[in-house]
Amino acid sequence: MQQEPLPGKLHGRHVRMGTEAVRELYDQSYFGKRVREGLDLSLVEAAYLLDRSRIQVSGTRGSPLDFRALFEQASAAEKGFEFRYVVYKDLRERGYYVQPGVPDFRVYPRGGHPGKTPAEFYVSVVSERTPLPLADLAEPVRVAGQMRKRLMLAVVDEESDITYYEAREKAPSGSMPKEEPAGLATLLEDRVVLWDPQGSERLHRDGFYGQPVGGRLQLSLVESAYLLEKGLIKLVDRQGAELDVEEFGRRASTIENDFDMKYRVYRDLRNRRLVVKTGFKFGTHFRVYKRVDAPQKVPHSEYLVHTVSADHVFHLPVISRAVRLAHSVRKAMLFAYQGDGVRYMEVRRLKP
Amino acid sequence: MQQEPLPGKLHGRHVRMGTEAVRELYDQSYFGKRVREGLDLSLVEAAYLLDRSRIQVSGTRGSPLDFRALFEQASAAEKGFEFRYVVYKDLRERGYYVQPGVPDFRVYPRGGHPGKTPAEFYVSVVSERTPLPLADLAEPVRVAGQMRKRLMLAVVDEESDITYYEAREKAPSGSMPKEEPAGLATLLEDRVVLWDPQGSERLHRDGFYGQPVGGRLQLSLVESAYLLEKGLIKLVDRQGAELDVEEFGRRASTIENDFDMKYRVYRDLRNRRLVVKTGFKFGTHFRVYKRVDAPQKVPHSEYLVHTVSADHVFHLPVISRAVRLAHSVRKAMLFAYQGDGVRYMEVRRLKP
Repeated sequence: MQQEPLPGKLHGRHVRMGTEAVRELYDQSYFGKRVREGLDLSLVEAAYLLDRSRIQVSGTRGSPLDFRALFEQASAAEKGFEFRYVVYKDLRERGYYVQPGVPDFRVYPRGGHPGKTPAEFYVSVVSERTPLPLADLAEPVRVAGQMRKRLMLAVVDEESDITYYEAREKAPSGSMPKEEPAGLATLLEDRVVLWDPQGSERLHRDGFYGQPVGGRLQLSLVESAYLLEKGLIKLVDRQGAELDVEEFGRRASTIENDFDMKYRVYRDLRNRRLVVKTGFKFGTHFRVYKRVDAPQKVPHSEYLVHTVSADHVFHLPVISRAVRLAHSVRKAMLFAYQGDGVRYMEVRRLKP
Repeated sequence: MQQEPLPGKLHGRHVRMGTEAVRELYDQSYFGKRVREGLDLSLVEAAYLLDRSRIQVSGTRGSPLDFRALFEQASAAEKGFEFRYVVYKDLRERGYYVQPGVPDFRVYPRGGHPGKTPAEFYVSVVSERTPLPLADLAEPVRVAGQMRKRLMLAVVDEESDITYYEAREKAPSGSMPKEEPAGLATLLEDRVVLWDPQGSERLHRDGFYGQPVGGRLQLSLVESAYLLEKGLIKLVDRQGAELDVEEFGRRASTIENDFDMKYRVYRDLRNRRLVVKTGFKFGTHFRVYKRVDAPQKVPHSEYLVHTVSADHVFHLPVISRAVRLAHSVRKAMLFAYQGDGVRYMEVRRLKP
């Protein structure tokens, strides 16, 4: 069905089409926005249709614009045009109906279209190079959730390859039993040793705490703080002085810069009856199990959790690496931050 | 062979053993350092042997020290004692002969021992929490190389789990043919489009440059700079003004902060006849192929390359994540930096 290209005219950030375009472009394929005089195409839609010879576009002085001319003008007129163009083109070529929207596009589910089904995704297009504040991600996630949509993040790399992610809120929970008292421990240079053999064994067996070394248990700083706060261990320093939660917190913060931030998340996860261990081997703060029945048969951990501050600014290559690594070991990647309580945002790869 | 523990005495940062210990501890298992009066054990060796009841240790006042007392005193006397202890213990339990050395230990190859074979590894013990300046890694790598040793990095996480890495210098090279001229390109908002269909196709086919979009080729900033510097493309901005290498470099630096640093490495890798593409999906600057014969059959890429500045300070969780991710996709992880020319350091996981 090769047809004569339909004529349109560039008006600032739109290409205005006549009424004959409504049937052919809107009714059949949901391009553009219906207006009284016919159909308004966004610059992204116009460039896409011009490249396919479905339309022709005349410039402000009436002369026809070729693809290069339209593309250069659109790129100068709209910040981020090039990114939106490659994402729009990619989604359209994958067979989705896509409409301009907030933040960038609305995408309809396969088999659906405007007027028949609600949109499934809100799409936010970002360049790999643009730093992304946590708030700029958390807010659209919240809005999408309220509107019962999913938030799709389309990241365009420097070679115009696109990686799609979904970001969503998550409330992880586990089913571990409560811990029991475990005796006396000493804060050494930067870790804690629990000396009591029975307490050590019980704590490791029933809660998967610490690392057994001989009959003793080495506890990490966050583990020690949690057990101390619950009143399950007594803690002294190398001089034998007893440490309470506040004093231990102060000392731990001198050993580890972001101790407070990490500990709030650790405590929240343990309070959710999850098992929380270091995620160092995965480059994250924690790896998290729903339940560990015995140290001899540790199951697959479900989540990797990385703690970020509320004013954190993401670099997309870092998100890319974290999510890719998590998926390569079949875990979900969660970013934890302090909001109204501790909040968790899952970021996962989408293959649309 | 359960024997009576041999008596020793704590002297500052050593435990001094009598002559009878030479045969039993040194000749059989290469513990300690022979001195005129007998054998001097380092604190790490002494704690290890005390925990195994091979020795007993009396303190400065003559009273015997139990493991906890020796451990607490050693931890107070030697910075990093706890880390060295867990690494020493782990390597010994894996059956290696280990001796104190520079930076921390010397490790002998399996089947080898002091006096029979040279040491295979120099071991540097680091805490996951301690920031590691590039220079503090590059220097021992250089020294180890000169001494025909390998550098082992033993990273202790907060739960006393150890991850072993080897760091070494690397000189990657490929076998790509030279590029040919390809025509006119425009710098848009933050990327470059090459308009000529033949030039686009040739450059993509023969050098795996850019990303084809329609009959055009989108080039990244580093690709454009390289082709421009080689005189293979002509570059204009959206106003039609021609850009030379210097002017393009200035503009690229406003688009991408670390453009200069990245470009120096990109150019060096291309000059080594390698194919260099973005590593965004892996969270690194580049993925690198030894050769790409045709875009239709792109082979496995060999390296992930991340560029760091000469004064870069590594965070070990970041190294952990990068190396783990690289290995999960069967690639080598290289860190590139400006030294005497561009240098490459491979970091890879060791399973001793």
